[in-house]
Amino acid sequence: MRNFSFVNPTRIEFGKGKEQKIGDFMSEFGVKRAILLYGSERIKNSGLYDIVASSLKQNGIEFIALGGIKSNPVLSKVNEAINLAREFKADSVLAVGGGSVLDSAKAVAAGVCYDGDVWDLFTGKKPKAALKIFDIITLAATGSEMNNGAVVTNENTAQKYAISGECLYPALSVINPELQASVSRDYLVYSAADIIAHSIEGYFSATYHPELVRMQIEANIKAVIKTTEILLENPNDYDARAEFAWAATLALNGYTYLGVEGFSYPNHLIEHAMSAITDCAHGAGLSVVIPAWSKWYKDKNPDAFKRFGREIFGLNSADDGINALKAWFDKVGTPTSLKQLNIDDEILAKIIDNAVMNAKAWRMDKLYTKENITEIFALAK
Amino acid sequence: MRNFSFVNPTRIEFGKGKEQKIGDFMSEFGVKRAILLYGSERIKNSGLYDIVASSLKQNGIEFIALGGIKSNPVLSKVNEAINLAREFKADSVLAVGGGSVLDSAKAVAAGVCYDGDVWDLFTGKKPKAALKIFDIITLAATGSEMNNGAVVTNENTAQKYAISGECLYPALSVINPELQASVSRDYLVYSAADIIAHSIEGYFSATYHPELVRMQIEANIKAVIKTTEILLENPNDYDARAEFAWAATLALNGYTYLGVEGFSYPNHLIEHAMSAITDCAHGAGLSVVIPAWSKWYKDKNPDAFKRFGREIFGLNSADDGINALKAWFDKVGTPTSLKQLNIDDEILAKIIDNAVMNAKAWRMDKLYTKENITEIFALAK
Repeated sequence: MRNFSFVNPTRIEFGKGKEQKIGDFMSEFGVKRAILLYGSERIKNSGLYDIVASSLKQNGIEFIALGGIKSNPVLSKVNEAINLAREFKADSVLAVGGGSVLDSAKAVAAGVCYDGDVWDLFTGKKPKAALKIFDIITLAATGSEMNNGAVVTNENTAQKYAISGECLYPALSVINPELQASVSRDYLVYSAADIIAHSIEGYFSATYHPELVRMQIEANIKAVIKTTEILLENPNDYDARAEFAWAATLALNGYTYLGVEGFSYPNHLIEHAMSAITDCAHGAGLSVVIPAWSKWYKDKNPDAFKRFGREIFGLNSADDGINALKAWFDKVGTPTSLKQLNIDDEILAKIIDNAVMNAKAWRMDKLYTKENITEIFALAK
Repeated sequence: MRNFSFVNPTRIEFGKGKEQKIGDFMSEFGVKRAILLYGSERIKNSGLYDIVASSLKQNGIEFIALGGIKSNPVLSKVNEAINLAREFKADSVLAVGGGSVLDSAKAVAAGVCYDGDVWDLFTGKKPKAALKIFDIITLAATGSEMNNGAVVTNENTAQKYAISGECLYPALSVINPELQASVSRDYLVYSAADIIAHSIEGYFSATYHPELVRMQIEANIKAVIKTTEILLENPNDYDARAEFAWAATLALNGYTYLGVEGFSYPNHLIEHAMSAITDCAHGAGLSVVIPAWSKWYKDKNPDAFKRFGREIFGLNSADDGINALKAWFDKVGTPTSLKQLNIDDEILAKIIDNAVMNAKAWRMDKLYTKENITEIFALAK
């Protein structure tokens, strides 16, 4: 194992009804004034908004709400929220929604404490301080509820970039699997692809990977595959929903990268270009990229791919494992070809240029040249 | 999954050479005056003591040292350290040693901040405050480096009891697998038994256990079995030593008990009586108890035992799995019978009485009656 430093201070409140206590929880952290961010108006129809508002009020927490955060969240909305939070003198941000809402909340939390353009924090500067971050996560996918990263798209430059820093761990995250039961069939399987992506990026790309950590990742992937299939049959299976949610958190809360050397996020690098240009769902883009990238990359790390095939699908070769994963994506109905996302050659050219830009920004341009990215996409047609 | 609240604030500094920075790390937490606790004088001969002292001095941290903490640490030593820490006006405790030293350090940290007999905190009262706790852990076994519990024996009453509380998480733990390479062959296999015990207590005793969490536990047990065998061949295999160390931490840092219902620590309950009466090594006692208890308990949770046999040893029945675990303990050389620990009927009678006392204190006396404990021990003869 390679040397590592690790701390994850986020408190998790997991289970049924936990959202009813959000005001109590935030009070424990001394919160007085919050900006509440959310996505669509669905949380008002479902009654979740009222539950949250009532708990905040009961605890004497003043708040101002801002909705309308969309999937693949955008910088302009983050800036709107930063201005509002400053005006309101918020001491904390509460995200009620999926990864996009929470990622926006993290950017807002850092942006309010930064004297300059928040985009600086996505392009080289490190956030040094942030408002306290809380969330009620209504979609299991990104793992943002227990990590210190966030991804936002600058719609002026089509840059889908990340911010990260110690100050961006949520203070407390509520994960109530019941609140995630209303997610659409499509978003369930896109989320499965996202969780699997978080699990395999390091698994496949690392130059060294401790076996214990590999086994934990395999446990996580098996849980995602099994619970996705259960949930497709019965969206209200609570235990499956709960394990799916917890697998999402575990996939990217740090543990699956401990002691690992030389890993990167190539599938994310490529997918970010796809959703930046086409606004496709992140998980849908990932399920297109993963099989293609895997076929292209497998000979650079044959042991990892062979092991994946054996441990996840009981198969004997790297190719069989990759094909089985693709077949599983096909079976559950998350796309595996550019065609399914209506990406023609003209759009693809823009995506490739965008991915080349990402590769430079992520310092991965030595391997992810225009030629190689083009080759990878050719395997996804 | 059942509802849970979880937070683990301990920072881990893992890897080669990390102990050289202990003063720097403690400075980050504002430490000015520490009491340094250790066990035998071996850390002076190995040079570790000097490395620690020098790093503390470089960072302007005053310290006072107290050695002589033994395995199955005792209350009198804890009280001696509490007095010394108060006199010295220590703001923190630094443990350099194994689980016994760290557990003592936790008791000292809480005891200094408690206005009364520290033993109260082992017998019903909850610690509310503690000095900051740091450690350089030189034996991988107890997992104390990333949890909030500690076990100490009151030698006047032969009570081996636990203290726990939010304030007892170490602020920072150094885990350098190289410092653990000099552990004796015996203590390596006792430690393996301890880690396996931490892994299986919940696995076997829970009335509900999420499958994802089960799979993580299985990964951990497999890693312990594999790395123990590697280390018996080659004690200097760094990666095996590192994975063994990390498996020890993961077995009891909270994650393997999340969402689990109705679990308890029966093997620990019984073993504590053994080491309280005979001063045997905790892991050695556990490897005697586990097969006996498992045979006695297996029909109360047949699925868990059957699954264990299949997943860990590739076998088809609960009995085969239990026998395989016992055979593995025999193979690596940790005891599996009372005879091997020189426990005759006279001593056993005292142990049984002590275990009955534990069962009452732990509120497990409905199942763990004198008759049943006697039956369990009869399977360990």
